[in-house]
Amino acid sequence: MALTKNKIRFIQSLDNKKDRTESGCFVAEGEKIVSELIDAGFTIEQLYGTQDWVGQYAQNIKTNIEIISKEDLKKISFLKTPNEVLCVASIPKHRLNLSEGNNKLSLLLDTVQDPGNMGTIIRIADWYGIEDIICTPESADAYNPKVVQATMGAICRVKVHYADFKSLMPEIQKLGIPILGTSLEGDNIYETELPLNGFIVMGNESKGVNAEWMKYTTSKLFIPNFPEGKKRSESLNVAVATAIVCAEMRRRQSAQTKLR
Amino acid sequence: MALTKNKIRFIQSLDNKKDRTESGCFVAEGEKIVSELIDAGFTIEQLYGTQDWVGQYAQNIKTNIEIISKEDLKKISFLKTPNEVLCVASIPKHRLNLSEGNNKLSLLLDTVQDPGNMGTIIRIADWYGIEDIICTPESADAYNPKVVQATMGAICRVKVHYADFKSLMPEIQKLGIPILGTSLEGDNIYETELPLNGFIVMGNESKGVNAEWMKYTTSKLFIPNFPEGKKRSESLNVAVATAIVCAEMRRRQSAQTKLR
Repeated sequence: MALTKNKIRFIQSLDNKKDRTESGCFVAEGEKIVSELIDAGFTIEQLYGTQDWVGQYAQNIKTNIEIISKEDLKKISFLKTPNEVLCVASIPKHRLNLSEGNNKLSLLLDTVQDPGNMGTIIRIADWYGIEDIICTPESADAYNPKVVQATMGAICRVKVHYADFKSLMPEIQKLGIPILGTSLEGDNIYETELPLNGFIVMGNESKGVNAEWMKYTTSKLFIPNFPEGKKRSESLNVAVATAIVCAEMRRRQSAQTKLR
Repeated sequence: MALTKNKIRFIQSLDNKKDRTESGCFVAEGEKIVSELIDAGFTIEQLYGTQDWVGQYAQNIKTNIEIISKEDLKKISFLKTPNEVLCVASIPKHRLNLSEGNNKLSLLLDTVQDPGNMGTIIRIADWYGIEDIICTPESADAYNPKVVQATMGAICRVKVHYADFKSLMPEIQKLGIPILGTSLEGDNIYETELPLNGFIVMGNESKGVNAEWMKYTTSKLFIPNFPEGKKRSESLNVAVATAIVCAEMRRRQSAQTKLR
């Protein structure tokens, strides 16, 4: 059966944040992400698969599946080359418990706006066992279809929260949780003592971390270029910088655990 | 004076690799990249700026500048939000001297196809003092407008070469230059002795490094996730993985230099 116009219009609307917020739904595409969402217990509202996909993968899926043609899939897909399966899932409501922040590593994102960067950072967080990412409301929306796809499934495991940093930062400070910021004027990350837990704050693609939030950082770190001192590029991409800081913090934590 | 249709058509054609190869030209946009290209001695074939830009920046530029309206700039720009300046520059012909590969760190890219990833990797190379990147012919073209913009100017300093890996890999092997590959089955990069120089080989976004080239690697490295052993995401983005390997190699090299 062909897809109704209403359904097509609804799915297409989920490209807009306003429509996602109103409906509480987001779109994910591809066998990997869809099966990971199902396994992770996400509520799947609608599931569309081609005959091929249903024949190969759908045996153990309990959600109602609507079999659609490749032409219909093309109409609802946000990908240049549509996959075999697309789902509409409910946006989860994650609870944030700031006081746990002392016992784990988390990320603060000050207005990372590029969906590709946001997705890549969620994927990095997943790799490094980071459960929570707290973003300013102006940051890219984690349930934007482009972000969901760029996470390669990490969105099923990492909790992305949005909060007003004006009240958040003093609260983290009051709890005495370390906040690590990166800055071109910071200390060489490899020559600085670092806490094992706390928040890493990363900033906007062109403006970096807002000076108002930098005030709350307990360490300002610099990722050294090479050869040191010889400045060439002005900075690293925000996702790349996030990865280098996370990698170094986890390297130390693993080394310490192995020493015990 | 308004831009001629021929000029508009020519600049627009530079979105295609074939047209770039035939004309030997590429497009760069924005004050930062354009001024860096000029400073680096690139041949600027055409330079278009708005009246605002010319008034503010053009005093010391010796290239002929064509002043154009914002409407005309919009017609030739590849950006969603056009900048104030756009140039057409000659694609440089870089010489590759493989035997120097023993005394420096270089990158081999096996079919990195996403222009954003390619640009980000060029930017990473620039940060870490890597002069040469050698790519398979199927890799994204470094002079694609999207790649040029994503390098944030690093394209002015890093030399990107294209070569057939079938003859390249045995040649590197014959020269006895280390080749480091990343693999999910590799050794923990932080617990492995690494050479300070050589080639780092990184692979395609979905297929990784071709098994045929992996045979030539002298070390297979794994970037450990956290907590170790608990696999969640299957992999890291290729630009992110490149950054983590480069950061670790340069960390060791700096530490060794400081010990001397």
